Amino acid sequence: MVEIITIGDELLIGQVVDTNSAWIGKELSQAGFDVQRITSVSDKKQEIQEALESATRRAKVVLMTGGLGPTRDDITKMTLCEFFETKLVFNEEVFEDIQQFLKGRVKNINTLNHDQALVPEKCKVIRNTMGTAPIMWFDYNDSVVVSMPGVPSEMKEVMTKEIIPRLREKYQPGVIVHKTLLVHNIPEAVLAEMLTEWEDALPAEIKLAYLPAPGRIRLRLSARGKDSKILEKSIQDQVDALMPVIGENIYGEDDLPAAEVFSGFFRKTGKSLALAESCSGGYLAHLVTSVAGASDYFRGSIVSYSNEMKEQLLGVNGKDLERYGAVSQQVVEQMAGGARKVTGADYAIATSGIAGPGGGTREKPVGTVWIAWAGPHNDVLSKCFQFGKVRERNILRTSETALIELMQMIKQGKL
Amino acid sequence: MVEIITIGDELLIGQVVDTNSAWIGKELSQAGFDVQRITSVSDKKQEIQEALESATRRAKVVLMTGGLGPTRDDITKMTLCEFFETKLVFNEEVFEDIQQFLKGRVKNINTLNHDQALVPEKCKVIRNTMGTAPIMWFDYNDSVVVSMPGVPSEMKEVMTKEIIPRLREKYQPGVIVHKTLLVHNIPEAVLAEMLTEWEDALPAEIKLAYLPAPGRIRLRLSARGKDSKILEKSIQDQVDALMPVIGENIYGEDDLPAAEVFSGFFRKTGKSLALAESCSGGYLAHLVTSVAGASDYFRGSIVSYSNEMKEQLLGVNGKDLERYGAVSQQVVEQMAGGARKVTGADYAIATSGIAGPGGGTREKPVGTVWIAWAGPHNDVLSKCFQFGKVRERNILRTSETALIELMQMIKQGKL
Repeated sequence: MVEIITIGDELLIGQVVDTNSAWIGKELSQAGFDVQRITSVSDKKQEIQEALESATRRAKVVLMTGGLGPTRDDITKMTLCEFFETKLVFNEEVFEDIQQFLKGRVKNINTLNHDQALVPEKCKVIRNTMGTAPIMWFDYNDSVVVSMPGVPSEMKEVMTKEIIPRLREKYQPGVIVHKTLLVHNIPEAVLAEMLTEWEDALPAEIKLAYLPAPGRIRLRLSARGKDSKILEKSIQDQVDALMPVIGENIYGEDDLPAAEVFSGFFRKTGKSLALAESCSGGYLAHLVTSVAGASDYFRGSIVSYSNEMKEQLLGVNGKDLERYGAVSQQVVEQMAGGARKVTGADYAIATSGIAGPGGGTREKPVGTVWIAWAGPHNDVLSKCFQFGKVRERNILRTSETALIELMQMIKQGKL
Repeated sequence: MVEIITIGDELLIGQVVDTNSAWIGKELSQAGFDVQRITSVSDKKQEIQEALESATRRAKVVLMTGGLGPTRDDITKMTLCEFFETKLVFNEEVFEDIQQFLKGRVKNINTLNHDQALVPEKCKVIRNTMGTAPIMWFDYNDSVVVSMPGVPSEMKEVMTKEIIPRLREKYQPGVIVHKTLLVHNIPEAVLAEMLTEWEDALPAEIKLAYLPAPGRIRLRLSARGKDSKILEKSIQDQVDALMPVIGENIYGEDDLPAAEVFSGFFRKTGKSLALAESCSGGYLAHLVTSVAGASDYFRGSIVSYSNEMKEQLLGVNGKDLERYGAVSQQVVEQMAGGARKVTGADYAIATSGIAGPGGGTREKPVGTVWIAWAGPHNDVLSKCFQFGKVRERNILRTSETALIELMQMIKQGKL
């Protein structure tokens, strides 16, 4: 149905990863279209032409990104002109948009910018509100070719607001309803086995996708049909049947990053939060502060990488550090309690573990992580995890797990 | 010369971003090969076949990844068999590798794993030391088709150790020498203007690439020829001519992330480091601790998101907080001094700024960031930056700038 062509030398020499295609593929598949091929070619006329010719032979819809910058303007546009047997004409409206966009950004409109207002005569121009390159839409027979800029923010804006709605209107791919459940702490193969019976009984219009990330899985249910109300009801019935099967490992029902799910939940409690981090090394604080507005509830984090800082700033007992080691239940619980006390926060989370690659022992191999959670009634809970061998992943999993578990503990009245 | 075909439905629905192609493109271009096209297709036989047919028509070398998992094994392998008019045969050596690899991971070798030892009769098998799918190398006429697994770690291992060396031997693309200079705090357009004269005088065998990231640019010089010693000398001459033009904004001469450049340098000073973070929110500590071995010199970070923490833990003067605001020279310098004092570290860095999207004012718009550096002689330096409007980018730029500037200050004897 759809093919994507991304244009640019930078894609072929690996200077830039083509994230545009993945984004377009995701949005289109959610809008009911199948992407059947992605092609990346260089900024050479012959290459673009060949890719365009073969794509239009196979697909109804061809979406192109890139090759529209002012410096090498003519290549993509001229290629399109030749392909559609038309010529470039000056478009007054586009030129006004360009002038408007560059106002205050540059002193004078130069020839290069002026020429961006030249568009193929046969195309419909769609205005670019976020940049200077116009979007070109070509209808031919029952098919469509669209050329968009490669700058992700410009492409995403016009895809969401203009291209996808027009494609849906033209091709009527039907209604699609999605629902995503966020599951943590169950390996994919185990989850798949747990869900076998439920999955076998899914009605034909509902498709299930497992989207795994380290320590987490997004379960996406998609229903295609004609009536969105019927589809929503059908999906909700399946979700209701699924909830008891998975249980408390479901931590969210919207397709959001863990930090945003946590932030949305925690903000509503009206409570405050502090952190004491050893192995997460600041990443846990970063996750919390990556969501705007964290200052409403977040007091701060004490990243106590050295034992002295654990003692001095968090009041961890020096003898316990010596006896049990920094990666121990005793120490991590004292860290969490200490963080609450020092900051006056309602809740505190502490992490201590062996992120790797060095530092592992027979009893505490790389990937051993203790997490403790302290609550408003002076109670402290803790758990030990075995994450794995890769430092980066251990830091990520420690931090996401710490937030998700706290949220679940509060929901279940455990803390 | 080279085309890449990546296979998998997950690429087309945007569930996975195709990072394999970018990685292959980068490695091949550094090894002297030009990638002319990247095609992503679904796990359908006909699609793979068509992509393979047209790629082999255009390119000498076709590298394929994906579609070799045990569950859908036959699609890529059978497609290759048909294409090369051959049949699958059982390969004893591959089966031994599979048994070896799965030892301890699974209880029994099942049929699916057994069938992974079936390979096309006409191919050369290259052993996969990191997984169960063998790599298949087909020679025909003067061309080559290689099929590799899509798992990035497996693909990268075999590309680096086996495929690239073999391709270089077969096609003798000549010697390539690279040198990367890391430049910070000069906008790309300004840098390009500074380098015009030097760039115009570059000898023909040396190519220059600007690889920009937020706040930083990697300048890559590449020389192609026959004698690596001559090329290295030629590149070094150009680097020597370039150094005085750019000056102290060059912070590294190896193509490494900023945190690794910093870590490599700071470790050698034998000094210790502490942090006090407000707007960087833990990300600066994360950058430092993302490099293994940070505990050798890193004491920790006080992420003081609230004013109370700035006062209590870092000893910032409450009146100054009120008078000048948290985002001010006065406060950030006190934070840096406080972090040194509290932790006993030789050096300390403090950050305070408005990351956005909210919190900006007319005098201190979003993107205003103060950074202070305290040194072993009780001296404190500070600078104000204007980074931009995007929260994520402001956090990143604050953190990288803080590390790079400290390194430069120490090198220049300023702190």
